[in-house]
Amino acid sequence: MSKIPLNKADNYSDDIIKERQKFVEEQTGVDLNHLINFSFNPKVLQGNIENFIGVAQVPIGLAGPIRVLGEYAQGDFYIPMATTEGTLVASYNRGMKLLSESGGVTCTVMDDAMQRAPLFVFENARYSRNFGKWIDNNFGAIKAKAEETTNSGKLLDIEQYIVGKLHWLRFNFTTGDAAGQNMVTKATHRACHWMLEQNIEGLEHFSMAANMDTDKKHSHLNTLQTRGKRVVAEATIPKHLLEKIMHTTGNALFKQRQLSNMGAILSNSSNNGAHSANGLTAMFIATGQDVANIAESSAAVTYSELKENGDYYMSITIPSLIIATYGGGTALPTQRECLEILGCFGADKVYKLAEIMAAVVLAGELSLASAIVANEWVSSHEALGRNR
Amino acid sequence: MSKIPLNKADNYSDDIIKERQKFVEEQTGVDLNHLINFSFNPKVLQGNIENFIGVAQVPIGLAGPIRVLGEYAQGDFYIPMATTEGTLVASYNRGMKLLSESGGVTCTVMDDAMQRAPLFVFENARYSRNFGKWIDNNFGAIKAKAEETTNSGKLLDIEQYIVGKLHWLRFNFTTGDAAGQNMVTKATHRACHWMLEQNIEGLEHFSMAANMDTDKKHSHLNTLQTRGKRVVAEATIPKHLLEKIMHTTGNALFKQRQLSNMGAILSNSSNNGAHSANGLTAMFIATGQDVANIAESSAAVTYSELKENGDYYMSITIPSLIIATYGGGTALPTQRECLEILGCFGADKVYKLAEIMAAVVLAGELSLASAIVANEWVSSHEALGRNR
Amino acid sequence: MSKIPLNKADNYSDDIIKERQKFVEEQTGVDLNHLINFSFNPKVLQGNIENFIGVAQVPIGLAGPIRVLGEYAQGDFYIPMATTEGTLVASYNRGMKLLSESGGVTCTVMDDAMQRAPLFVFENARYSRNFGKWIDNNFGAIKAKAEETTNSGKLLDIEQYIVGKLHWLRFNFTTGDAAGQNMVTKATHRACHWMLEQNIEGLEHFSMAANMDTDKKHSHLNTLQTRGKRVVAEATIPKHLLEKIMHTTGNALFKQRQLSNMGAILSNSSNNGAHSANGLTAMFIATGQDVANIAESSAAVTYSELKENGDYYMSITIPSLIIATYGGGTALPTQRECLEILGCFGADKVYKLAEIMAAVVLAGELSLASAIVANEWVSSHEALGRNR
Amino acid sequence: MSKIPLNKADNYSDDIIKERQKFVEEQTGVDLNHLINFSFNPKVLQGNIENFIGVAQVPIGLAGPIRVLGEYAQGDFYIPMATTEGTLVASYNRGMKLLSESGGVTCTVMDDAMQRAPLFVFENARYSRNFGKWIDNNFGAIKAKAEETTNSGKLLDIEQYIVGKLHWLRFNFTTGDAAGQNMVTKATHRACHWMLEQNIEGLEHFSMAANMDTDKKHSHLNTLQTRGKRVVAEATIPKHLLEKIMHTTGNALFKQRQLSNMGAILSNSSNNGAHSANGLTAMFIATGQDVANIAESSAAVTYSELKENGDYYMSITIPSLIIATYGGGTALPTQRECLEILGCFGADKVYKLAEIMAAVVLAGELSLASAIVANEWVSSHEALGRNR
Repeated sequence: MSKIPLNKADNYSDDIIKERQKFVEEQTGVDLNHLINFSFNPKVLQGNIENFIGVAQVPIGLAGPIRVLGEYAQGDFYIPMATTEGTLVASYNRGMKLLSESGGVTCTVMDDAMQRAPLFVFENARYSRNFGKWIDNNFGAIKAKAEETTNSGKLLDIEQYIVGKLHWLRFNFTTGDAAGQNMVTKATHRACHWMLEQNIEGLEHFSMAANMDTDKKHSHLNTLQTRGKRVVAEATIPKHLLEKIMHTTGNALFKQRQLSNMGAILSNSSNNGAHSANGLTAMFIATGQDVANIAESSAAVTYSELKENGDYYMSITIPSLIIATYGGGTALPTQRECLEILGCFGADKVYKLAEIMAAVVLAGELSLASAIVANEWVSSHEALGRNR
Repeated sequence: MSKIPLNKADNYSDDIIKERQKFVEEQTGVDLNHLINFSFNPKVLQGNIENFIGVAQVPIGLAGPIRVLGEYAQGDFYIPMATTEGTLVASYNRGMKLLSESGGVTCTVMDDAMQRAPLFVFENARYSRNFGKWIDNNFGAIKAKAEETTNSGKLLDIEQYIVGKLHWLRFNFTTGDAAGQNMVTKATHRACHWMLEQNIEGLEHFSMAANMDTDKKHSHLNTLQTRGKRVVAEATIPKHLLEKIMHTTGNALFKQRQLSNMGAILSNSSNNGAHSANGLTAMFIATGQDVANIAESSAAVTYSELKENGDYYMSITIPSLIIATYGGGTALPTQRECLEILGCFGADKVYKLAEIMAAVVLAGELSLASAIVANEWVSSHEALGRNR
Repeated sequence: MSKIPLNKADNYSDDIIKERQKFVEEQTGVDLNHLINFSFNPKVLQGNIENFIGVAQVPIGLAGPIRVLGEYAQGDFYIPMATTEGTLVASYNRGMKLLSESGGVTCTVMDDAMQRAPLFVFENARYSRNFGKWIDNNFGAIKAKAEETTNSGKLLDIEQYIVGKLHWLRFNFTTGDAAGQNMVTKATHRACHWMLEQNIEGLEHFSMAANMDTDKKHSHLNTLQTRGKRVVAEATIPKHLLEKIMHTTGNALFKQRQLSNMGAILSNSSNNGAHSANGLTAMFIATGQDVANIAESSAAVTYSELKENGDYYMSITIPSLIIATYGGGTALPTQRECLEILGCFGADKVYKLAEIMAAVVLAGELSLASAIVANEWVSSHEALGRNR
Repeated sequence: MSKIPLNKADNYSDDIIKERQKFVEEQTGVDLNHLINFSFNPKVLQGNIENFIGVAQVPIGLAGPIRVLGEYAQGDFYIPMATTEGTLVASYNRGMKLLSESGGVTCTVMDDAMQRAPLFVFENARYSRNFGKWIDNNFGAIKAKAEETTNSGKLLDIEQYIVGKLHWLRFNFTTGDAAGQNMVTKATHRACHWMLEQNIEGLEHFSMAANMDTDKKHSHLNTLQTRGKRVVAEATIPKHLLEKIMHTTGNALFKQRQLSNMGAILSNSSNNGAHSANGLTAMFIATGQDVANIAESSAAVTYSELKENGDYYMSITIPSLIIATYGGGTALPTQRECLEILGCFGADKVYKLAEIMAAVVLAGELSLASAIVANEWVSSHEALGRNR
């Protein structure tokens, strides 16, 4: 087995990159003609990737405009979506048209918190319970310690979850425009470091993480308690637009929503809606988000109402939207351009981005739900032979 | 609001693409310098994207080699990972080294099924129950109808889930080297079309989908019943390698596993492991998979044992790995090159790809778990003042 | 510490019972005046209780009649309910009146299966996968072995659930009029015994149970796959009766159902209905069921529709109703009398009992939902000062 | 259909009870010989039951003593268990012996809260978010209003859960020695009444309940956040006692625990332990608890450790133990006697009862787990022919 070429002094130089590309070609017999094409100086990648050899070129389609009535995002937006799934852009586009003609999507960031959840194991449950009171009594000192490590992160509160002698603390931070996983790890680590110096009675074991923040994994806890941004998109679609643009009715959509709710309950799904992951993933890739967070950010709760006049109110709540407009991949060349297209690059833009993403998700939900409902009609209509 | 330029005759010509790029620049005031750089003829994108304007350049790092002891993947593999998260490639790389030195990862595809789950609503539950028997009695005819639409898809069986008068059928298909969502939709649609012609007694309503296949969403049902490939990676790591490479012990890893299991139970997580989404997402982007499926494919179940001699057995089961080596984005230029690096482009390669992905995931699990455990030690050691 | 008096020769004689009663009085200083009153020969308790000292006298109230339109239960039934919760009987009674005046409750037993789920642990996942095929190929022999132990139990099928090298088999049996947990344990044990003699390749460990039948515990698996009887009760309530008897409307009930569905999704509840456990527990105690099964039998899925004329369709599906009309406590004196009141004592009566119980549950759901809705109205009305 | 005889003036007189008994006999043709035997004046049943006709005589067996090392329960206790399931008392008894010889069970009440969770629906999510802040700012006034209705209940805090425009408040109260569901309903109702008078902006609809307290239903939310008492029982069992009394080892029990954890994760069970519902139900019936709460109180989380010397640490956490020593059925004749046997009748005894119940549950867990493990050994031993 040959080792991948590495230059410890500068692993982002053209030479070492070329050497690795050649190495891949020799080891695997593959000619690299496309991977190796990129339009930027690879030095910008420091902190984003190791053993760089080239880029995945993921096609971007443009959808929109979509009218967003947010507190941060206000106006019409064109949406860059990076995907290889045919019809995705077209389908979202249709939903955006519907929503824009309906007057736009009201978007609201309801909550904002990034977590790290260290675990303290005690000799027995009684020590664990006492520790809970100690935390409440020492919150000020813990907060001060945690916040020493960051300018933008603020410790909001510490949730406590207990199983016998196992005692998880869930530190909730704001993280400014960053997604903030590293920020909160550092801050929580500092706070725990201090706590461990305080001779906590009966402490037997400590672990920085044991699945109560559920980083990169869906959990029902995160749906209940927010991870990243909890953001809502909602709109009321006039009856006539449902008919004109979607060839369906509020009545049909509402019935389908009832059935989908039952399916979600029975399958125990992380999302009673349709396919929010599609729109979010396309925007995550385009805008340099940590795409693995789709594991968490794909959770959603949909709620709708059929109005007496036949209009259809629909909302979607995304409880764990983990995004950034600063840090991570957001400043890389194509990623930054996509954020700029949205007017969301840089400081104080993350809530704006959250609102736009939620609006896009709602567009996709309406579009797919309408397609399913219309298809039902067609298929059953044909099947039952009524149009022959 | 201006409409995005569209050429119905040929929406992938250089002219219309340039027109859209110019449109974006005018509408948003952003100069596009990087997005517009791609190395291929955009005509290849037909069926993959609409309103194409350019590409996201997602950096790819190379990890490996990792030794895979699969039934399809046998040997050492270099892994292209597309990500913008610093340390991800390095961390997986460390796990791959550990696993390779341990003799490699045994990988097994346990099951293979892609679903579509139409819903039949009856006048009452008794009709619904009778329908269940009718399905069992007519499975042959239904299978024949479904398979008319596809050469590679085979209908394996039809699961039935019932709530009162709501009756979901879950059609399970093999789908060859494609991920197969479209294939199974078409096949199921054809079968349902035929069924709807059979005068099913008491049928009131039909819907092609209502959240019992949970496309693009995690569900506990999919963890129980497989969606895409159910694949297992497992390895036993000798004690001395854990110490040499990971600076930890099987004992410490096993204890951490117990605590993580409790956390996963308490948070009700879709995954009791660490971060399989990281490795999978990086490989999904690199190899042209439908990345939104990370919502489903991020589920996993980890099981480990501490051997009497201090060796550490670890396994991970991915119940819903939705991947392809044919169709979707797999034949796009950089995506195809990455599949070729893995020896996984084209026909009869999807199980090989599944095995490699599972092996990579296991590498990442061992690497992160070891880092957490080592960090614990360091932090608590320092905190408790023992090394001063 | 003193040992409880025990007579190994005959632990149900009057003497030893009196000795134990006296022992309790001496050890605890409590005068036993009521516990010691029972109306039967304690010898009947053999196989039902150890160290008998007396009885809990649980008051029984009578509700009904309720009109049941089952396949087994047809007609009007009076329902004995054993509870100490005030208003429970009255509340259910109100729902029974509503349902009876509406024409009755259609009840249907959809499925019937009791499980035991032994676990086979293999050296690795590949052996585990092969074992799955072996099971399919040897189902006939396994079934023959299992059924040697019982006349009434029939092995329906064997579900398989796999995590890596762990392989659960879920044996599904019919159990006649018994609840059948012991029957299926014996039958499964016999089958496993035979299987363990067949030199299954790679087998490392065997366990008769490891939480995949989830006896005495709710699990989502049981909601999906049935444990005991899966039974549905459904009815359509005319608008005018909702107004006359419940002082509410289908509209208000349907809206409340939407909200309750969202709550159930957000709380991740085992039951999106109201309080089926109340009615079931009262009937379980009265009729000699194993009341601990309420842990499982309290799961339910409710689905409703608002009809265009304002009528309200409501259904409830109980996926894990674990009951018996034979065995367990069903033949004890008061328990038998209660079964006889329902016409459900003895052979071939268990489906009838399931239908009646489901009907009672539906009565309770309608009654409580109406009370909540009416209360809303009152409270908000008063609160908002409109009636002053 | 005949109406059940009712005397509005006094529905608990001997005459009306006899009339109802006769009515049952006439309507159903059943001779009531046992149901009608009770040892108390039925007037005591007012507030506990309607349409009283007699009692279920549920046999009580005595188990123990069990040594409890609680903060409230200290010493050896004899446990009255009302059940009709043979071997239940004997099995728990064996576990009690093991625990007592091991020095006793450490029990700790970790938390105490009973809920009511009204739902406020707003015109849109923004109003919902603002309402959240209003609640925080007006907590003092809300608490004062709520506490007007009760002497023993104190409002601890108000959790908030949000889906779009739906906003649940989860009022957490202490409830003294009562289970407290009625107390908290009244208190919450009063508080909401006051809130509804405050002209909350954008409020559209109010409902006293919509499945976020999950009364009489298991929910994952309740496992996370406590309902009733959160109580822990824990003990370390010396190796030699496991061998002497249980014929097994800590090693075998620990391995079985690993497997059971995996089963619980895969089945998505409300309880990763064995059968806590058995012991709790038997004590609930005996001591006059609301037995329907077993739906909630059967949830549990088990955690264990294998000590280096072969001792076995085991703990169980019951997150939703809903019990009372005052109110409900606790003062009825046999029920009171059972509470007195435990030294738990009346004021300030509910934590003591919680501790004893948790200890009993732990006894049952150890006993059943040991039986399964021993059975494995026997069955596989025989099967594999080693002892022939």
